Amino acid sequence: MAFSERVSRLKSSLIREILAAAQRPQVMSFAGGLPAEVMLPELDWQAMPLNIGQYGMSEGEPQLRELFAAEARTLGVACEASQVLVVSGSQQTLDLAAKLYIDQGTQVLLEGPTYLAALQIFQLFGADCLTVELEADGPNLATLRRSLERQRPAFIYLIPTFQNPSAVRYSEAKRGAVAALLDEFGVTLIEDEPYRELTFDGSSARPIVSRLRAASWIYTGTVSKTLLPGLRVGYLIASPDLFPHLLKLKQSADLHTNRVGQWQAMQWIGSEKYQQHLATLRNFYRERRDGFQAALERHFSELADWQMPEGGLFFWLTLKQPLDTRTLLARALEQDVAFMPGEPFFSEPDRHHGHLRLNFSHIDPARLDEGLKRLAAVIRQAQLAQAA
Amino acid sequence: MAFSERVSRLKSSLIREILAAAQRPQVMSFAGGLPAEVMLPELDWQAMPLNIGQYGMSEGEPQLRELFAAEARTLGVACEASQVLVVSGSQQTLDLAAKLYIDQGTQVLLEGPTYLAALQIFQLFGADCLTVELEADGPNLATLRRSLERQRPAFIYLIPTFQNPSAVRYSEAKRGAVAALLDEFGVTLIEDEPYRELTFDGSSARPIVSRLRAASWIYTGTVSKTLLPGLRVGYLIASPDLFPHLLKLKQSADLHTNRVGQWQAMQWIGSEKYQQHLATLRNFYRERRDGFQAALERHFSELADWQMPEGGLFFWLTLKQPLDTRTLLARALEQDVAFMPGEPFFSEPDRHHGHLRLNFSHIDPARLDEGLKRLAAVIRQAQLAQAA
Repeated sequence: MAFSERVSRLKSSLIREILAAAQRPQVMSFAGGLPAEVMLPELDWQAMPLNIGQYGMSEGEPQLRELFAAEARTLGVACEASQVLVVSGSQQTLDLAAKLYIDQGTQVLLEGPTYLAALQIFQLFGADCLTVELEADGPNLATLRRSLERQRPAFIYLIPTFQNPSAVRYSEAKRGAVAALLDEFGVTLIEDEPYRELTFDGSSARPIVSRLRAASWIYTGTVSKTLLPGLRVGYLIASPDLFPHLLKLKQSADLHTNRVGQWQAMQWIGSEKYQQHLATLRNFYRERRDGFQAALERHFSELADWQMPEGGLFFWLTLKQPLDTRTLLARALEQDVAFMPGEPFFSEPDRHHGHLRLNFSHIDPARLDEGLKRLAAVIRQAQLAQAA
Repeated sequence: MAFSERVSRLKSSLIREILAAAQRPQVMSFAGGLPAEVMLPELDWQAMPLNIGQYGMSEGEPQLRELFAAEARTLGVACEASQVLVVSGSQQTLDLAAKLYIDQGTQVLLEGPTYLAALQIFQLFGADCLTVELEADGPNLATLRRSLERQRPAFIYLIPTFQNPSAVRYSEAKRGAVAALLDEFGVTLIEDEPYRELTFDGSSARPIVSRLRAASWIYTGTVSKTLLPGLRVGYLIASPDLFPHLLKLKQSADLHTNRVGQWQAMQWIGSEKYQQHLATLRNFYRERRDGFQAALERHFSELADWQMPEGGLFFWLTLKQPLDTRTLLARALEQDVAFMPGEPFFSEPDRHHGHLRLNFSHIDPARLDEGLKRLAAVIRQAQLAQAA
């Protein structure tokens, strides 16, 4: 069997396997990044024209591109609709970016920790994944400068707002400093913002791409966290030098994004109805976050440290007594509890033991306390066994 | 700017540029492969459950996988739902197959001519595209055997039923012979059948994958030609040795296919309503084919040779006096006529002058005669200029 060399780097995805296990209804899952089902808005399809069923443009629906461009401009991103590419969920942005930049051995720079599926797809294409360490307010700037001086990454991939998995939101100062460094070294920025709208303290910081003066950039977002992931509608906005290549890569990947989902997204983005939905969603998730924080304090205050997230969908726990959290997973699932071990979020998993990512948006509040109690018990037991 | 090596092979797509030009309403287009808009069925969304908006399985909706498997079994393909992967249109099957098999320099074997977008994506991944010549009833078997003896293609890609662009349908004998050769040499078959259901003489031949005894295989289809391309719902069915790799590649490409389109497809596939729709569609396209044949006889009988297609969406013309048909395109568009030059359907375009692919499904019958008349005039003028 002669597969491509790439297939030898095709890892089994922990996410997929855990999501599969977590399908059992009795499982209390802190594992995924799923929206709460009660917050999925009702859809109205009455007005959808019949010819939306026809083939469409690879770029996406013109009206939807205008809406995404207008939304980005309100964030300070100077762009036109001609720079917007509608993609099949923002995961596809990573596939297109990997195709655009990565050969076997190409260096790319990522946060440590970073989004697991980004790490996987960049590695699949053969990237050498370098890491810049995350602090509470963004990357360590000295490390970033040193990395840019010594290495030649094809791009840097950042999730500056309510990062998955760490929930870190970059400070204003670090956003500016990162932009200045990328301009200085001429390194392309891929800025991924799926969680921007899920802010609990009302504050919003301008994207880093809006602060660049020279470097090329791709800014990507999605309706999956605010509207409906099942539509598979996301977007990327790219600097004009990159857009034509990304468009051709999109066309060869799947011709164009499904138009039914695009039409539905058009009914929401930029509308009053969407703003109201977002306000409701933020309140709902803030309450879930608060409930989760209280339950964590009851069961984890002796076991772990964490920052309360100001947005997004996750708590990121650091165990006071580190251990390989991947070894906890089977035992947790035996107790009908699912969570995401921290190790796979690092390009060198074995050097980063002792973190857990816990999703707070999806779990039924009535089962939250029991779920965290069981998870804490699994950890205590493992630590006792390790000490013995 | 340090792009990947692959980007240097990223061609401007003639299809996309022509489709863009053909958007002007006054253009009489024979270029695309678009369904007739009047044949797009009306959609009913009333019964769609709200939680279809949630994230789904990378494999696709379980019920839809069952339906596609059942449909394939009626064609003689022994398979289970566990071998079915729902993809974002069958174009995505080509992306996944390229990732699975192609490194820089990997040999793959294609029909000459073959589907343009397949050629492009295999070349994008660095494939060395070898060709087996098509005859009226399928590939030249002696050439195929010689190619398999002398070369080691990672796979062979075939479109045996109403091929795009040539409209060729393989005979029973050649289907059996091809299967036997692939088993003998252990070469994987990718069989692409978007046009299978669009048969005008009622006959149907078993897929080649159903005749294999040993070789690995991927069978792929779509609802784009029979239902709605805008849904972007296709499927692949793979031999069990390939499926797990394809599933992981699908997940890294876009997590999963949009569930709204999948739900809509589930309302049709395997239903009485779908059978009725297909019958209507076949009658409608047969009439268009007949009208096109008559108009071609009026305007092209001195200019070109062709076989009347027994299915699919295209006529494939061979000019009696060959010329590079790409040079005709600008002049045709000036006359508000669009068509597909034949050269890009070959891996060595400059060795295959003098073919045109004409789509008969999309053009308004009231404008058909005028469109073909203008196209014939453009060709005559070019031939006169060439002779002068």
